[in-house]
Amino acid sequence: MALIVQKYGGTSVANIEKIRNVAERVAEEYDKGNDLIVVLSAMAGVTNSMTKLAKQITATPESRELDVLLSTGEQTTIALLAMTLISTGYPAISMLGHQADIRTNDTFGKARILAIHADRIKKFIKKKKIVVVAGFQGWNANGDITTLGRGGSDTSAVAIAAALKADVCEIFTDVNGIYTADPNICLKAQKLNEISYDEMLEMSSLGAKILQIRSVEFAKKYNVPVHVRSSFCKEEGTMVVAEHSNMESLVVSGITCNKNEARITLKKVPDQPGTAVKLFTPISRAGILVDMIIQNTRSGGQTDMTFTVPQSDFAKAVEISRKVAEEVGAEEILTAENIAKISVTGVGMKSHSGVAAKMFATLAAENINIRLISTSEIRISCVIEAKYAELAVQVLHTAFELDS
Amino acid sequence: MALIVQKYGGTSVANIEKIRNVAERVAEEYDKGNDLIVVLSAMAGVTNSMTKLAKQITATPESRELDVLLSTGEQTTIALLAMTLISTGYPAISMLGHQADIRTNDTFGKARILAIHADRIKKFIKKKKIVVVAGFQGWNANGDITTLGRGGSDTSAVAIAAALKADVCEIFTDVNGIYTADPNICLKAQKLNEISYDEMLEMSSLGAKILQIRSVEFAKKYNVPVHVRSSFCKEEGTMVVAEHSNMESLVVSGITCNKNEARITLKKVPDQPGTAVKLFTPISRAGILVDMIIQNTRSGGQTDMTFTVPQSDFAKAVEISRKVAEEVGAEEILTAENIAKISVTGVGMKSHSGVAAKMFATLAAENINIRLISTSEIRISCVIEAKYAELAVQVLHTAFELDS
Repeated sequence: MALIVQKYGGTSVANIEKIRNVAERVAEEYDKGNDLIVVLSAMAGVTNSMTKLAKQITATPESRELDVLLSTGEQTTIALLAMTLISTGYPAISMLGHQADIRTNDTFGKARILAIHADRIKKFIKKKKIVVVAGFQGWNANGDITTLGRGGSDTSAVAIAAALKADVCEIFTDVNGIYTADPNICLKAQKLNEISYDEMLEMSSLGAKILQIRSVEFAKKYNVPVHVRSSFCKEEGTMVVAEHSNMESLVVSGITCNKNEARITLKKVPDQPGTAVKLFTPISRAGILVDMIIQNTRSGGQTDMTFTVPQSDFAKAVEISRKVAEEVGAEEILTAENIAKISVTGVGMKSHSGVAAKMFATLAAENINIRLISTSEIRISCVIEAKYAELAVQVLHTAFELDS
Repeated sequence: MALIVQKYGGTSVANIEKIRNVAERVAEEYDKGNDLIVVLSAMAGVTNSMTKLAKQITATPESRELDVLLSTGEQTTIALLAMTLISTGYPAISMLGHQADIRTNDTFGKARILAIHADRIKKFIKKKKIVVVAGFQGWNANGDITTLGRGGSDTSAVAIAAALKADVCEIFTDVNGIYTADPNICLKAQKLNEISYDEMLEMSSLGAKILQIRSVEFAKKYNVPVHVRSSFCKEEGTMVVAEHSNMESLVVSGITCNKNEARITLKKVPDQPGTAVKLFTPISRAGILVDMIIQNTRSGGQTDMTFTVPQSDFAKAVEISRKVAEEVGAEEILTAENIAKISVTGVGMKSHSGVAAKMFATLAAENINIRLISTSEIRISCVIEAKYAELAVQVLHTAFELDS
């Protein structure tokens, strides 16, 4: 007997037939005597079509009202799943964000969960009900509906699991776990049986497609074991858990690749205090998330300043950079859009030396030029030309002995 | 400066273009300095398609969950209208049933409004906001979403108008008012400038298509002036108001026709106490609404018992009647499906005699045989063969001087 939170994404509830499959899977766990909370996303595509509908009215729909609109997506799926379960004899009950008392801040469109008062959910669990909760939504102190942003249902599920001290939070998705690399790029990619919260966070470019990063932060904070698995098969997936000593035997657990960034370099900036502030304050004010920042000292009191931004914000970032370059007296601006960031990640790095050296040597052996390097305690990232991205992933995968 | 509740039906908010029209109309009233609460239905057809979706799961979807599903229809339209108003510079805010605190009983699918605690609506009105409320929905004491049944948005609007003591409740629909007869049947039908609550209730077969009967009962109880008008033109419609002395100058205010009933007669029933109970108890238990009941005394301790039921319940009613007929020893059962109930209605009847006589004479002059007669204080109804229905409406319209 366990307390299990299951979360099913949009592709798992895309139509009545798939909702029936989910109901069968839920019923199976219930029949084993487990207590169940099921968190759902909207049907695949529905949130996008509603956003499009709102954009027919105005390019910038008011955010409170957009949340009222978007939250109907999960309201629909929870009602349909609860009906399906009830029609087959299982005691289900649906709960909206405000009914489950998922309290958030006021940031419509990407609200943060502040607290979950789980009393109502607990009351129904005690009565042996299957509680079907709308993911992606909550309410603020004024009683307004809020939504948590893209992939918010993962965060809902983990937060509910934390509030109820669930034994596990199962995230059902259309892949069967976390791999050592993207299987579409690297045919030898292996499914990991487990991965630490920190590795999952560092492997964000791979992980974000499967698990919303905020949900991993939440899981880490409250130590919620997360099981990422497929809704289309029974096979065990990947457990995302707290780091433990056995994990270090594997030096590197994954190779990831991110092609969605672009590089901007301000060349020959006079090396004076406050230059970085002048550049990154307006960029941050424009809502642009900077990923890597690297500064090289040149001779002659000058420095080169390089940073990467999401490609979607590239044009805006270049515009701001040009203004700042003129202001601070930088000589030139260089840009590159066709770049890829290749990362090797693993908690084992903490206790193994030579990972960086091996990475650089492996890339050099293929004549792949490294443009930028950045590191964390458990990750090394190199920016290279985009055309070498797939090759880099494959050779690193082999070099770090991940090909099974 | 007035406090106005406006209600727009499903055809008035069927797409973004029509929602823009509604927004313009609302803005126009707001610009005059009026306080505005706007109550909306779901987009035309949406409630039906959601019901169909639920029926793909099971023929009898669980009622609480069906309400969770159906209530998304109005949630969508209020968000879209509020966005539209805000995008054109008007301070609108949407409110769901529970946010507007529309309290109902527990009867999912056809809940009754118990109370509206209008404090939250009032707070926003004070701030000069246009409050856009989801019709058709409320919540019960457990915090569950409830829906009010077909046409429930009319009732929402009138109830909100009553709670706020609004100056008028405007019901925008696809016809421009209440007519003396169905204009599709009677080309000479005239639009009424006003009609009393009681007349509206008696003219239910005509009125139900335009205004939900429960909303008229509500309006009468709380004396809410209701203005039925078209959302597609600016013309004044029909005011539904409390009866006043001037109304009696018009003896008859409308001729209505109902072809959706069927007749059942138990012939030669032994005239004993308790026979009616034996017949109508099982019929009521089967959820069948009996309209007319007429009993004629025959000689020889026998009686004929005739009643009418909606055609949709006819088969079930006949089945029950056959069982009861055998039990009580009735000689025969007669049935007729092709019948029409023609009614003349008017508060003026209270002070004018001869209305019934004129009605019978008018029908007789056309050789239309009357099968059943029933009356109320302000209505006389005759059941005739269905094929004469249109003719009957036309000649009565002329006879009672309604052809303008």
